[in-house]
Amino acid sequence: MLPVIATLGSHSALQILKGARDEGLRNLVIAAGGKDTLYRRYGFVDEVIAIPRYADFESLEDDLVTRGAVMVPHGSFVAYLGEEVNQRMRVGYYGNRAVLRWEGDRDMQRRWLENAGVPVPAEYAAPADVAEWPVLLKTHGAAGGAGYFLAPNRGALERRIEALDGAPHTIQQYVVGVTLYVHYFYSVIHGRLEILSMDRRYETNADGLGRLPLAIQGTLDPKPSYVVVGNAPLVLRESMLETAYEMGERVIAASRELIDARGLWGPFCLETVITPDRRFHVIEISCRIVAGTNLFVDGSPYAALFFDEPMSTGRRIAREVREAAEGGRMGEVVDAA
Amino acid sequence: MLPVIATLGSHSALQILKGARDEGLRNLVIAAGGKDTLYRRYGFVDEVIAIPRYADFESLEDDLVTRGAVMVPHGSFVAYLGEEVNQRMRVGYYGNRAVLRWEGDRDMQRRWLENAGVPVPAEYAAPADVAEWPVLLKTHGAAGGAGYFLAPNRGALERRIEALDGAPHTIQQYVVGVTLYVHYFYSVIHGRLEILSMDRRYETNADGLGRLPLAIQGTLDPKPSYVVVGNAPLVLRESMLETAYEMGERVIAASRELIDARGLWGPFCLETVITPDRRFHVIEISCRIVAGTNLFVDGSPYAALFFDEPMSTGRRIAREVREAAEGGRMGEVVDAA
Amino acid sequence: MLPVIATLGSHSALQILKGARDEGLRNLVIAAGGKDTLYRRYGFVDEVIAIPRYADFESLEDDLVTRGAVMVPHGSFVAYLGEEVNQRMRVGYYGNRAVLRWEGDRDMQRRWLENAGVPVPAEYAAPADVAEWPVLLKTHGAAGGAGYFLAPNRGALERRIEALDGAPHTIQQYVVGVTLYVHYFYSVIHGRLEILSMDRRYETNADGLGRLPLAIQGTLDPKPSYVVVGNAPLVLRESMLETAYEMGERVIAASRELIDARGLWGPFCLETVITPDRRFHVIEISCRIVAGTNLFVDGSPYAALFFDEPMSTGRRIAREVREAAEGGRMGEVVDAA
Repeated sequence: MLPVIATLGSHSALQILKGARDEGLRNLVIAAGGKDTLYRRYGFVDEVIAIPRYADFESLEDDLVTRGAVMVPHGSFVAYLGEEVNQRMRVGYYGNRAVLRWEGDRDMQRRWLENAGVPVPAEYAAPADVAEWPVLLKTHGAAGGAGYFLAPNRGALERRIEALDGAPHTIQQYVVGVTLYVHYFYSVIHGRLEILSMDRRYETNADGLGRLPLAIQGTLDPKPSYVVVGNAPLVLRESMLETAYEMGERVIAASRELIDARGLWGPFCLETVITPDRRFHVIEISCRIVAGTNLFVDGSPYAALFFDEPMSTGRRIAREVREAAEGGRMGEVVDAA
Repeated sequence: MLPVIATLGSHSALQILKGARDEGLRNLVIAAGGKDTLYRRYGFVDEVIAIPRYADFESLEDDLVTRGAVMVPHGSFVAYLGEEVNQRMRVGYYGNRAVLRWEGDRDMQRRWLENAGVPVPAEYAAPADVAEWPVLLKTHGAAGGAGYFLAPNRGALERRIEALDGAPHTIQQYVVGVTLYVHYFYSVIHGRLEILSMDRRYETNADGLGRLPLAIQGTLDPKPSYVVVGNAPLVLRESMLETAYEMGERVIAASRELIDARGLWGPFCLETVITPDRRFHVIEISCRIVAGTNLFVDGSPYAALFFDEPMSTGRRIAREVREAAEGGRMGEVVDAA
Repeated sequence: MLPVIATLGSHSALQILKGARDEGLRNLVIAAGGKDTLYRRYGFVDEVIAIPRYADFESLEDDLVTRGAVMVPHGSFVAYLGEEVNQRMRVGYYGNRAVLRWEGDRDMQRRWLENAGVPVPAEYAAPADVAEWPVLLKTHGAAGGAGYFLAPNRGALERRIEALDGAPHTIQQYVVGVTLYVHYFYSVIHGRLEILSMDRRYETNADGLGRLPLAIQGTLDPKPSYVVVGNAPLVLRESMLETAYEMGERVIAASRELIDARGLWGPFCLETVITPDRRFHVIEISCRIVAGTNLFVDGSPYAALFFDEPMSTGRRIAREVREAAEGGRMGEVVDAA
């Protein structure tokens, strides 16, 4: 029996569910707080399960286990269910859950990236240590860029940290360059790393500031914010593509040393800033499907180099699960609790 | 007999004509002032009718009626033919012409959006009323962003209004955020609202200012303009997608109360600015196919959620017309004069 | 026997090789200095030839000639092999090599564009002649935007020119507007000019500056650079599309007068800035496939108006070569030394 692809209703669920349908797998979506309405609009969604709150998720588990569901996590899983529920979930879970703790803790994430030999921006323990202004203040657990603050100088940074009232945070060098997010997929079944697509985030108000002339900015003095509300497609200079591949491979290799023998697999994303010397600076890693892949439901110029039909990251996951199921290798792609 | 899809040669005509071809309908384009040359370049255009001026359009009407043409209006129809000719045209007209007056008058458009409960930016009756600077001064009938002026303060606004010499205009709050245009399609045949794609406009010089460093802007003091010369693709954060659907549905519901019982159908666009609180602000509504859909002649990530073949808005219109014709329901999608 | 499509491993090689595969032609890539690893990742690449340095290229020529290879040049050919090797190469060369000299010399290129009646920005012989600031200082042979300097005033320009130490350079008016690159293809076999796609470059740090608020820019005083690291897709306002076609046609016509009777064919690109009066200003011409076409490996909204399958520029080249081979017209598309 082929598995059922299941996910939570948000983030990149449409893409994940559509991918399942395109690969001939049944799909279902669990949506809390009235979020089911979106998923009922689409004919390719086989089943919509509405629950009042995500706290009710565990009441569905027995049924999901019985039906052979495979949960495909995305960027809202930890926010909605908490890391603990993710860890103890008895439903089949696509990906390695041991990675969650390394992704979720900014210090461990940094150790991982540094071990992988991937260039990262400078971090400072305290305002007094900052070598170059401005810096980005990031509160831990900030999602979608909402908790970022661009501090122009020590006074502003200290005032903002004080307002955090002891909440954990990171002070990071602000790299002046352009952002580019690389969407990777590591296939366990094929033992191969694939770059499937790329994007840049569309952030409000940061991406609107540049449209304001100097005089207006002077009057308004708008504070930049980095709230992600969308994504725009990009391709990378071909001469830099091998470096992008090698960074991804080193991140996987490091995960096998630091996390466990299986390491990272499936979709992940390196969030980079590229400076005029054409060097990548890796700002963050996301160890699951990212929302920027939603641009490529109907295909991408990079996926087209591997597949002759439109292959979104969501569909790529479904294909990997299907091939694992057909080959009796489900244990290699699904992390059972 | 299947209808012939006809349109005027500009704006999104290539997409409309290609859509007709892809749906197996014949197409024709009417082009004035030498604009026929573009359409003769493409093999999918069945017939190009060149006329000296758009004022000559009505001389073609008898023939178009005889041949069962359906005119598909786009953003240049009112500019080229005038609202009156649009209203009295005897050729079948795709869409509800009663909507034209509500779209064309900024005060009525605003009443419509407010009735729909869609968030709109503040508007001010006079410079003295402005609560927050800057504001956008929009002359009525300004097309493609060409008549917009960003006023930093009362003096500048008053001088500009004086220069308008009594021409009707609107003073609108300038919302600092990022722009995103949602391309909707309401299908009468399927009783369903579809979001088919999204874009942001590419405006000169507003989208070039941000590439100029501070010192240069200080010297040059460039005045921002918002002339649309192109479009770039975007996707929206999935958690905001249901809100986009609901705004579209409320706009349709309000149109049935305010305009007439049939209300708005076919393609329309809400032009939004999104602020860091993730709220939409609807700057304008376009009640026909918008040029941003030209990005998606070969498909879009949103249309792929409804259709298994590439479905531009132009093709979606042709499909609706074809299905109406095949089902004897042409009267429901075409507005006969 | 059908020809083998060959290229050098960089720039747009993946697209060129994939295009050959999609048209049923064998392909091979020659990669120096360890750049072969990227091309070994992709199953559609028939053969990867690794050489230590591009200086070793000529040792492969006899074999390539024997095998009936057609070299498809891209933006790195002159940088890697030098113009001289390009000129004397005995392997079949897609395109007219006489064009190389006109493209490579900024003064000849300008004469060509002016002869074509295409609007070009003002150029100044010396700092004292500059009529309007800022200006762009471009060193000859600058590739990928890396050698550009935006000079705000005469003093800054003079200092920078002095630092060039006699190296050839151009002082060009900086046009304030938005950039748009038009990807053309002139088919000798069909006698037809096709616009296949459009993009804008993604430049670091120029495209990141606008995200920095005024206060931060004031402190940092970042110097703008224009290093191309990627590309983003665009479409052009349909009413300007015929002008884009006509500029392309005039450039081809002028090439037949100035260069030789065969003139320019195959892919080329006009790099434009569009000002608020909706006029194009042509900054540069590239007479071969440009990297912006890498966005469209899986199709583009413009190519879809000519072809019913996804048609990248790389595939378009392969199709032209295949049709030439099948029709016994190889001499018309390949420039033999």
